Amino acid sequence: MRRVMLTVAYDGTAYRGWQIQAGQETIEGVLNRCIGELTGETVEVIGASRTDSGVHAMGNLAVFDTQSLIPAEKFSYALNQRLPEDIRIQNSEEVAVDFHPRHCSSRKTYEYRIYNAPFALPVKRLYSYFTYVPLDVERMRQGAAFLVGEHDFKSFCSVDTQAQTTVRQVDSVEVWEENIFGVADVAKDAVPGREIRRPGREIVIRVAGRGFLYNMVRIIAGTLMEVGRGKLPPECVKDILAACDRQAAGPTAPACGLTLIGYEFL
Amino acid sequence: MRRVMLTVAYDGTAYRGWQIQAGQETIEGVLNRCIGELTGETVEVIGASRTDSGVHAMGNLAVFDTQSLIPAEKFSYALNQRLPEDIRIQNSEEVAVDFHPRHCSSRKTYEYRIYNAPFALPVKRLYSYFTYVPLDVERMRQGAAFLVGEHDFKSFCSVDTQAQTTVRQVDSVEVWEENIFGVADVAKDAVPGREIRRPGREIVIRVAGRGFLYNMVRIIAGTLMEVGRGKLPPECVKDILAACDRQAAGPTAPACGLTLIGYEFL
Repeated sequence: MRRVMLTVAYDGTAYRGWQIQAGQETIEGVLNRCIGELTGETVEVIGASRTDSGVHAMGNLAVFDTQSLIPAEKFSYALNQRLPEDIRIQNSEEVAVDFHPRHCSSRKTYEYRIYNAPFALPVKRLYSYFTYVPLDVERMRQGAAFLVGEHDFKSFCSVDTQAQTTVRQVDSVEVWEENIFGVADVAKDAVPGREIRRPGREIVIRVAGRGFLYNMVRIIAGTLMEVGRGKLPPECVKDILAACDRQAAGPTAPACGLTLIGYEFL
Repeated sequence: MRRVMLTVAYDGTAYRGWQIQAGQETIEGVLNRCIGELTGETVEVIGASRTDSGVHAMGNLAVFDTQSLIPAEKFSYALNQRLPEDIRIQNSEEVAVDFHPRHCSSRKTYEYRIYNAPFALPVKRLYSYFTYVPLDVERMRQGAAFLVGEHDFKSFCSVDTQAQTTVRQVDSVEVWEENIFGVADVAKDAVPGREIRRPGREIVIRVAGRGFLYNMVRIIAGTLMEVGRGKLPPECVKDILAACDRQAAGPTAPACGLTLIGYEFL
């Protein structure tokens, strides 16, 4: 028996999240089915991160055990032939038979994307949350700085968590903006002399840490958006942490803006 | 009677292109229907660019005439309430009653995106063409340089064109790559000591010019990919231009990678 680890990328739009559920299309369900069809075995993958409905991934991880003679590094090619085009294996390799992707020391990176402009942009709609409310990136950055380090993140955790402790270590929170070429430039020059419109831009919140609570990154994003729009002062993030109360933080930002970027093992 | 100009962004995935066709969902058809429902008039928009099936846009332009009392700049808000989410008006404004978006001097910018990595990335699949064949960006840039200026682009035009002349002016062709964070970094560190994989990256070809022939940007992209993979030397682009023969150039690259960025009026 060998254990194979897959690096799994997916567009979460069409799925009810990672975790297998009867009668629902999930990433885990599709993987079990496709690996099973390939090897002829009954397969139950173990995922590193059980992403929510609508959340995307570039590098989630899954392991499974097999007696198949297919070389571990060939599973990526063989599975990509069978998987729907919104799921693609990025890498496959053999790991130790006792390797468990949730029981080992790792750093996980997420990105939350916000398309911030007067009007939504169709080509961004599936992978960014849209808001027309102007956001101040510098304020968001100031607020984000309070989150770095080891803290009790109880305020940034959905109340229905089963976690034993709500203390987590966040290694970094970066916030930056990317200009979307086109929208602004076009409108500005469309008819000479007309009002110059605010450019379309995407704001990216990239969070890296050793494990996250349920909905933690989406609550961080929802809170930093409240800071960015001026509803909360940046220093308030410190008070929200201290409150240890979900009600103190901002709303849970929508799933479509969130992408699990990947894992590093430490 | 007033003439209103719309800046129109769309995800072309679900449409049979811009131009109205009986029994097919097209951007033009949806605009005519939604504007008509809003104003109660029979509307026929005039588009600046009749993009092909599957091509995207951030800033296509359309004008229409109306006797409605809705202020021109309010059409963007009112139409976005009615349009499907894969079409969004970015700007609306009144223009001269004789303004025609195809009969005036303008510069148009397109981007062609190529996701170049060992495996496709689901979150890129709708807006980038995927190829696992490694492309050399520096070679593509060298080849692209021969296209700048006024040339007979007959070799870069689909044979079924109705254009009177195939001479066009290309103002710039830029080629660059954008690293997609995550895929490479993850795989590299997934299990220490394992092979370092080539990073996922997106190659962007941005072309600006005064009008384009049918399929011209997609044939430019297809040809530069042949140069990038080493099948054609960069200097060959000069010979392809001189040949004035569609057979001399590379294939027409798939529609999904192409986005009309926008217009500037000169």
